[in-house]
Amino acid sequence: MIKPLTTPARGMRDFLPEDVRKRSYVIGVIRDVYERHGFEPLETPAVENIETLLGKYGEEGDRLIFKILKRGEEGRQTGDADLALRYDLTVPLARVVAEYHGTLPKFFKRYQIQPVWRADRPQKGRFREFYQCDVDAIGSTSPVIEAEVCGAVSDVLERLGFTDFVIRLNHRELLRALLDVSGVPANLHDSALIAVDKLDKVDADGVVAELERRGVSAEAATRTLQAFGHSTTKAAAPQAAESSVAQAFRPADVDAQLERLLAGHDVGARALDNLRAVMRAAAATSAGAHLRLDPSLARGLSYYTGAIFEIAVPDLAGSLGGGGRYDNLVGMFLGQPVAACGFSLGLERIFVVMTERGMFPADVTASGADVLVTLWNGETIGTSLTIARQLRAAGLRVEVYPEADKIGKQLKYASSRHARYAVIAGDDERAKGTVMVKHLTSGEQTEVPQADLARWFDARPS
Amino acid sequence: MIKPLTTPARGMRDFLPEDVRKRSYVIGVIRDVYERHGFEPLETPAVENIETLLGKYGEEGDRLIFKILKRGEEGRQTGDADLALRYDLTVPLARVVAEYHGTLPKFFKRYQIQPVWRADRPQKGRFREFYQCDVDAIGSTSPVIEAEVCGAVSDVLERLGFTDFVIRLNHRELLRALLDVSGVPANLHDSALIAVDKLDKVDADGVVAELERRGVSAEAATRTLQAFGHSTTKAAAPQAAESSVAQAFRPADVDAQLERLLAGHDVGARALDNLRAVMRAAAATSAGAHLRLDPSLARGLSYYTGAIFEIAVPDLAGSLGGGGRYDNLVGMFLGQPVAACGFSLGLERIFVVMTERGMFPADVTASGADVLVTLWNGETIGTSLTIARQLRAAGLRVEVYPEADKIGKQLKYASSRHARYAVIAGDDERAKGTVMVKHLTSGEQTEVPQADLARWFDARPS
Repeated sequence: MIKPLTTPARGMRDFLPEDVRKRSYVIGVIRDVYERHGFEPLETPAVENIETLLGKYGEEGDRLIFKILKRGEEGRQTGDADLALRYDLTVPLARVVAEYHGTLPKFFKRYQIQPVWRADRPQKGRFREFYQCDVDAIGSTSPVIEAEVCGAVSDVLERLGFTDFVIRLNHRELLRALLDVSGVPANLHDSALIAVDKLDKVDADGVVAELERRGVSAEAATRTLQAFGHSTTKAAAPQAAESSVAQAFRPADVDAQLERLLAGHDVGARALDNLRAVMRAAAATSAGAHLRLDPSLARGLSYYTGAIFEIAVPDLAGSLGGGGRYDNLVGMFLGQPVAACGFSLGLERIFVVMTERGMFPADVTASGADVLVTLWNGETIGTSLTIARQLRAAGLRVEVYPEADKIGKQLKYASSRHARYAVIAGDDERAKGTVMVKHLTSGEQTEVPQADLARWFDARPS
Repeated sequence: MIKPLTTPARGMRDFLPEDVRKRSYVIGVIRDVYERHGFEPLETPAVENIETLLGKYGEEGDRLIFKILKRGEEGRQTGDADLALRYDLTVPLARVVAEYHGTLPKFFKRYQIQPVWRADRPQKGRFREFYQCDVDAIGSTSPVIEAEVCGAVSDVLERLGFTDFVIRLNHRELLRALLDVSGVPANLHDSALIAVDKLDKVDADGVVAELERRGVSAEAATRTLQAFGHSTTKAAAPQAAESSVAQAFRPADVDAQLERLLAGHDVGARALDNLRAVMRAAAATSAGAHLRLDPSLARGLSYYTGAIFEIAVPDLAGSLGGGGRYDNLVGMFLGQPVAACGFSLGLERIFVVMTERGMFPADVTASGADVLVTLWNGETIGTSLTIARQLRAAGLRVEVYPEADKIGKQLKYASSRHARYAVIAGDDERAKGTVMVKHLTSGEQTEVPQADLARWFDARPS
C-alpha cells in the first residue's frame, strides 16, 4: 500500500493542543479588549458567492482568491466556480451592512475573529489560512472612530506585552496629493501606489524603476520618492536614508514637511488636517504613544478612502495588522455611501513575534489533566468512572486510564501527561470506601474517603 | 446600478451579535465539559488535499464535498480540483494521528469544535456550513472509551438543560450479523445498511422496497425489518409498530430478542457482549440514564467498525449528534490499525431545539454596553475618550458616541442600544472635574468626580 500524504495542504497548518491553547489565549485577550470598547461579535460564512468577492481587492487579490467548483457534472465539465473562500473580513462586513441596513444600530461597531484564505506563496509568518481579528465601526466620519479603532488594537498589543510597536498613519488622499505635487498624472495614481506600497520590501531605486515601468516619468518618480521621505541614488533628499519606522519617530518634522509640500493643494491639506484630528483624539487613548505620521505608508487594498494604518515592530518584516477608512465599500453593495473604518490584527504575525520573544505566560501552555484516575482491573471500571464523575462535577480536569495495565505503567503514563495527581482505588481501598491519592511530582500519598474526594481537592487549588 | 446580491451564499448564514453570543454560550459549555473529561483541543485547516477526503465518506459523501479549483490558468481550463473543504472532523483527525504518530500521547484524547461544509440540499436545521463539536479518543479498544465519550456528550446536554434525550446505541458487527441471520448476502451488506439507515425517514414498507431494489430477496428484506424490530404490512412482527425511540425504552426486551436472534452467530454475539460492557461502564456516567440499545440504528458514514451512537430528542426529526468506533480509519493513513472512537455533537441542531424551547439563560442574550460616554462638542473628544479609557481599564464595556449631536439624541441612542448608564461631561462638570452619570432606565443622575468614576461603577455591579 502506498502511504497517503498525511501533511496538511500547502500553506495550511494543524494546531496541536499546545498551539490551540496559545492561540486561544491571544484570541481571548483580543475579544476581551474589543468587547470593552463596545464592539459586538459578528460571524460570516467561510464561503461567499464569488461575485461578492471579485473586484474588491484589486487585480492581485482576484488572483489569490480560492474558487470553489460548481457542484455536479456542470462544474466538472466547465470548470466554472460560483463560490469562493473568504479573503478578508471587511468585504463580508460591507455585504452584511448592506443586507441588514435599517435593522443594525446607527453606529454599528462589530468585531470579527475568523480565518481567511489566500492562495499566496507561503513563507515565514505567511500562510494560506490565517486568522484576522477585526474591529470596524460603521456610520460615522468622525475622527473619534479612527482614534477608537487604533485605541482598541493598541490596548490589545499592550495587554499581550508589546511595548515597542508603532502605528504608522497615513491618508489615501494625502498619498494622491503627494503624487499630484510630484507630477504623477491622476490616471497613474492607483498603479503608482502599488509600486510605493513596496517600499517595505524594495529599496528606493527599485521603486523608482518600477514607477518608470508603470509609465511615470523619471523626474516625477524621483520627486515622488523624495516626497515620501526616501532618498534615491539619483538625488538624495536631505531627510532620507532612514527606514520608515525610524523616520516616523520625528513626527514634528514630517508634519512640517507635509505642510510645506501640500500648501496650495486643497484636498491634500484637508487630508493632513484630518490626520491631525485623528492624532489629537488618539492622544487620549493608548494609541497616542504609538501613532506616527508616515507618508510612505500605502496599504495594498484598493478600497481605502481616508486614514490608513499599519502596525510595525522592529523585528518583523511585515506588519502585525492594518486598516483604515473605506467610505465607499458598503456603497458597492448598498447603492448609497456608508461611512466605515476599521483595523485588522493578524493573529499569525502576533503569534510569530510572541513565540520568538517568549511572551506567553507559563500557565497558558501548561497542559495535562488535574487528575488521572487509574483502573484497578476490568471489573472496577464503574468505580473509576464514578470517581471521575465526582471530580469532574467539582470542575477538575480528569482523565481515566482506559485499560487494566499494571498500576506502575498507569502512573508512568500519568506523569508523562503532566497530570498533578493520580487516584488509585485498589482492593483494600474499595473495601474501606477510600481511595489513594498520589501527588505525582512529590510522590506523597494520602488515603481519602471516596465521598470526601471532591472536597479534598477543593482544599488544594492547583 | 444593479444592486448586487447581499444575502449569504445558499445554505450559509451570517451570525449577528445576538446569534454569536448564543452560539458562544453553547460552545463555551461544550468546551468546558470536554476539558473536564481530559480531552485536549485540536484544530485542523478548513482546506484539505482532495485525496485526503475522497473515498472516506461513501459515494454520497464524495458527491457532497466542496471542491476547490486549481489556481491559475490550469484550473480554469481543466476544471481540476486539488483541494476540498473539510467535510467532518474525524477524517482530519485520522490524518493528524497518522502524521504525528509517535509524538502524540499513547491515549490521545482530543476535542475539536470547528465548521464543516457539505453541498447538501439546505432545509430546516440543515445548512451547508455547520459546526461540529467532536470528542475522540485514540489508542484503546476498552469499553471505557465508549463510556467516556457518551458520558461527555451526555454531561454537555444536561448542562445545557436537556433532560429528555436518548443515546441510541448499536454496533456495526451486530448490524451485519442481523443481516446475516436475515439472509442478506455479505456482498449486499453495505448497500443494505444504506437502506436500513433510512428507517428514520421512510416507513418499513419503503425500506423493504429499497432493499429489494438493492438486490435483497423479498423474504430476506422482510426478515431484516423484523430483526430490526419493525413491522411491515407483509408480515407484522409481534414487537413492532413503534418508533425506534419508543421501542428503545424497553432495553431488556431488545437485549433478549437480540440474544435469541444471534445465538450461534459468533461475531454478532461478541458485538452484543461489547455493547453490554459499554452499557455497564456507562452506567457510572451521566450517559447511563440515556443509553438505549437500538438495533435499527445504522449511521450513514462508512468508516465505523464497532459501537455506534446517535442522540434523539422527541421533537427533532434528525439527531443532535452521533458517533462510534472506527478502528480502521487511521490505518487508511498510517498503514497500521489504530483504535479510535468518538462522538460528534451538532451545534446547529442543539441550537434549533434550544431556541424553540427557550432554553437560553437571559444574560446570554443581553447585549448593550455598560456605559455610553456622550460627546459634548468637537473640542471635548479628548475628555470623552479619556473617560472611556478609565472605565475600560476597570473592565467595563464602553461605547463612545462619535459625533457632537444634541445630548438628547445621544441619550436616546444609548437607550436604544440598551446601555445601562450614560456619562455626560458638560461645560460645568468639566470646569469642576466631575461628570454626570445617568442611569438610563430610572433616569437617576449622579455627579461623580471624574477621578473616582471607575470606583463609583465598581460599587454598582451590573
